[in-house]
Amino acid sequence: MKAVGVVVEYNPFHNGHFYHVEQSKILSGADVVIAVMSGPFLQRGEPALLSKWQRAKMALLGGVDIVFELPYAFATQKAEIFARGAIDILAASGCDYVCFGSESGHLEDFYSTLNFINTHQETFDHHIKKNMDEGMSYPRATSSAFQELRPSSQMMDLSKPNNILGFQYIRAIEELNLSLTPLTVARKNADYHDQELSSTHIASATSIRKSIFTNNGQLDELSSYVPNTTYTELVDYKRQFGQFLQWENFWPLLQYRLLTTDQNDLAKIYEVEEGIENRILQLVEKASSFSEFMTLLKTKRYTWTRLQRLCVHILTNTSKEQIRDLSDRASYLRLLGMTDLGRQYLNKWKKHSSLPIVSRLASYKGKEIELDIKAAKTYALGFEKAYRHIALSLDYKSAPMFITKKEE
Amino acid sequence: MKAVGVVVEYNPFHNGHFYHVEQSKILSGADVVIAVMSGPFLQRGEPALLSKWQRAKMALLGGVDIVFELPYAFATQKAEIFARGAIDILAASGCDYVCFGSESGHLEDFYSTLNFINTHQETFDHHIKKNMDEGMSYPRATSSAFQELRPSSQMMDLSKPNNILGFQYIRAIEELNLSLTPLTVARKNADYHDQELSSTHIASATSIRKSIFTNNGQLDELSSYVPNTTYTELVDYKRQFGQFLQWENFWPLLQYRLLTTDQNDLAKIYEVEEGIENRILQLVEKASSFSEFMTLLKTKRYTWTRLQRLCVHILTNTSKEQIRDLSDRASYLRLLGMTDLGRQYLNKWKKHSSLPIVSRLASYKGKEIELDIKAAKTYALGFEKAYRHIALSLDYKSAPMFITKKEE
Repeated sequence: MKAVGVVVEYNPFHNGHFYHVEQSKILSGADVVIAVMSGPFLQRGEPALLSKWQRAKMALLGGVDIVFELPYAFATQKAEIFARGAIDILAASGCDYVCFGSESGHLEDFYSTLNFINTHQETFDHHIKKNMDEGMSYPRATSSAFQELRPSSQMMDLSKPNNILGFQYIRAIEELNLSLTPLTVARKNADYHDQELSSTHIASATSIRKSIFTNNGQLDELSSYVPNTTYTELVDYKRQFGQFLQWENFWPLLQYRLLTTDQNDLAKIYEVEEGIENRILQLVEKASSFSEFMTLLKTKRYTWTRLQRLCVHILTNTSKEQIRDLSDRASYLRLLGMTDLGRQYLNKWKKHSSLPIVSRLASYKGKEIELDIKAAKTYALGFEKAYRHIALSLDYKSAPMFITKKEE
Repeated sequence: MKAVGVVVEYNPFHNGHFYHVEQSKILSGADVVIAVMSGPFLQRGEPALLSKWQRAKMALLGGVDIVFELPYAFATQKAEIFARGAIDILAASGCDYVCFGSESGHLEDFYSTLNFINTHQETFDHHIKKNMDEGMSYPRATSSAFQELRPSSQMMDLSKPNNILGFQYIRAIEELNLSLTPLTVARKNADYHDQELSSTHIASATSIRKSIFTNNGQLDELSSYVPNTTYTELVDYKRQFGQFLQWENFWPLLQYRLLTTDQNDLAKIYEVEEGIENRILQLVEKASSFSEFMTLLKTKRYTWTRLQRLCVHILTNTSKEQIRDLSDRASYLRLLGMTDLGRQYLNKWKKHSSLPIVSRLASYKGKEIELDIKAAKTYALGFEKAYRHIALSLDYKSAPMFITKKEE
């Protein structure tokens, strides 16, 4: 059996994701689709709308066969580390292909960009530094440097989030020397950051989340943008847990953490650099919500995303030391769910797998998975009192989801 | 002007406290009454029912002339340290007398007990150790040792909480060689730990708090046990802040702290000793409320009070190192409020005072007061969202209460 891998967050799984899964199968000709999916906290430094178990279920009902969790150590990180961890897991799970959505849609763009950067590394780094000295954030400085050096018609827009990720996937494959064949699908209709639902059946996850929160949890408006299976899951989840989570649910905890932490200890947290701990501690008392806090904290030098990731690390109390102690390679495959086809695949693959497949938390120990467990516990504390205790026990007690599909 | 000092928590100020203040004036013949009062967290390891500002106001309306805050470094401590800090502050504020309530009511009992213990220290310590080896908590082991060694008719019951404190006040006066004359008043009617309101006009603060929480904030039943001024303050406070605080309001924060702290870091917290950090981390996931957590945590070896104090230190993130770095003497007098008579007294006294009188937080810096500030911020986070931000800013912005009294 051939497998194609996808790197996802599914927050939540929508029609665009469904299209991506379908195209991944068509382009690769693979039998099974393996998704590596962020856990409770996402690459943009946000808590997931709903738990990883439900997001895995949506994926399995939407065409994916196996879902592995992308460990916290990779998930809440800048594109380079995020991509490296995800690609490493897909390779370790035996994928032959990885298929990603991109604004570009042309694989040759990525290779030419990578070659260009590799051959002009020194000049490129020089331009990035110059841009950062002028006060740009790192991502902006990088994309500007690229435009300054290569203003050709073949240029790929490296300021687009999915182009950046795609670029880092290909870079990781090259650098880790993995036998994964990359494929790319042009993203349809919706832009990653779109705030409003579009007029077609494709909408960005951002606009879907916004619709949920501005409509006070009313889901009706979403039904044409997500598969029926997702819609049913969202309705069920709301009934079971009473709410979808966002940063504001964690603000009391973040505020408490900051008000009882001194500068020295705050500076030990991962990504707290360059004296930003002083600024954080000055501002936390002025803010009465997370969005107010972020607005006060934001400067030209730091992207919103980087600041949010930093807040996630403060919230989960993840230290520089804890991250430094980890390998930069994946060390386990945490199984969140599978279809019966996925199970057949895994039964064969597990004999060859270089990494342990972790189905039950109790059966595996390690520093990297400790971070996942801490992140899961922290996530559970975002719920209202009535749901917190059950949410807290779910991560330990849940076995991987198993979905039996009817004959098609 | 002569001053008499009282050591108090006023949680809340009731008729028994009123009687104690009156008797202190009568017995001492002093012109002014100075109270040293615990801040947001109390000796029994509990958050105060209402803020220290309102508790200070109740005191000033009930016959006290000056209220100083007992710093966190002394307030949330076993009797010996609590008493030493409080007595030190009363001496530093120029008190000639200290008057305390006790179950005994006879000063000579305290001196004979102190003399007996001082002359039999070695045997006494030996008996305490023996009792603890048999699994008793320290307070129980101490009071048993005393009974074993001195089963005379003149014996003072050292298992009674106010006798213990009185004993420690007198011990502190002797050890620090202070020119404070102790006086004691026998406590009327109510036992410190009484759970139910009594049939007289005197009830314990414990029973008053219990009445508030079991009657869902209804205050009517209390009116005959507290002065009118206290009653009015309680009603006003409830209107302003919506609630009275108890440990359960801080459970989400304590739980979050514990779920994101590892054993090594937990062992750095003050009073976390003898490997109890492992037990704490095992039990926190099983509990869905503070009282459930405490019930699971309680063993014969630790008193309820000691465990609650330990939880306060975890909640406020107070480390062994932070407490070790402090002097064992008071270093400032934090003024919470005064009457006009109190102001006259302070205007004269401040020229002689060996310690700075701190009226505004911004005007004073120091490691000891940092702990008070952190405790105040933590306390504010116990309120519901709507009140949290205002509660948080109060501590910084509040000037000492000033109460003008009508001519009597």
